[in-house]
Amino acid sequence: MSQDPEKLLAQICFDAAGLVPAIAQDHATGQVLMLAWMTRESLAETLRSGAVAYWSRSRNQIWRKGETSGQVQRLVDLRIDCDGDTVLLLVEQTGVACHTGRRSCFFRAARDGEIVELAMERVDPGLLYPRSL
Amino acid sequence: MSQDPEKLLAQICFDAAGLVPAIAQDHATGQVLMLAWMTRESLAETLRSGAVAYWSRSRNQIWRKGETSGQVQRLVDLRIDCDGDTVLLLVEQTGVACHTGRRSCFFRAARDGEIVELAMERVDPGLLYPRSL
Repeated sequence: MSQDPEKLLAQICFDAAGLVPAIAQDHATGQVLMLAWMTRESLAETLRSGAVAYWSRSRNQIWRKGETSGQVQRLVDLRIDCDGDTVLLLVEQTGVACHTGRRSCFFRAARDGEIVELAMERVDPGLLYPRSL
Repeated sequence: MSQDPEKLLAQICFDAAGLVPAIAQDHATGQVLMLAWMTRESLAETLRSGAVAYWSRSRNQIWRKGETSGQVQRLVDLRIDCDGDTVLLLVEQTGVACHTGRRSCFFRAARDGEIVELAMERVDPGLLYPRSL
């Protein structure tokens, strides 16, 4: 998916901070993997390269997903919602999306009033980010 | 899904405006239907009643999904992400989620550099909001 992104970018309503929320969904299974934020720049790069790049609000810099961990996301398709203020990324996820080592970030739920974890780690997070240990 | 929401609410990191993004996904098909925002109040109401209530940022008031249109969302399960700043709602959607009459709000995509619509209206939006015509 490499194309001139101008017409697509023109449909996106970035917020006052220049960000748009992006939902990443596994293109094959439909599993929702994560939500992160994109700038115009990171979205344009994603469309050009086919490798998903977000904007890290905590580090205030472009966040090329998987650059450190190897857990990259290849963009398969991108959908824009009705009012252009959210994008849905259909991705091919290498390994796991979550920094905890789980496939999806949405692994917690309430059961009988307690918070439980519904998914196990698939990868030791210490192996994903060896330089940060 | 009716339960004491306190432990769940304590896991949610609402932003500076008191909001958290909420992704609604069809619990049976996996289709991502929409993204909207919740306050602590609307999330607590959702957990109590089982009927999804968002916060309308444009109207600045609680938005009981389907109250006008009849296109309600019944909460089947709720997932919290790893850092507690997004929730994933697994819902049973009556009719359509999108105010345009489409099942999902994410019906636009780029094809050959042009924006196209991938889904048809299932319901005439004029029938969803008769009072606003």
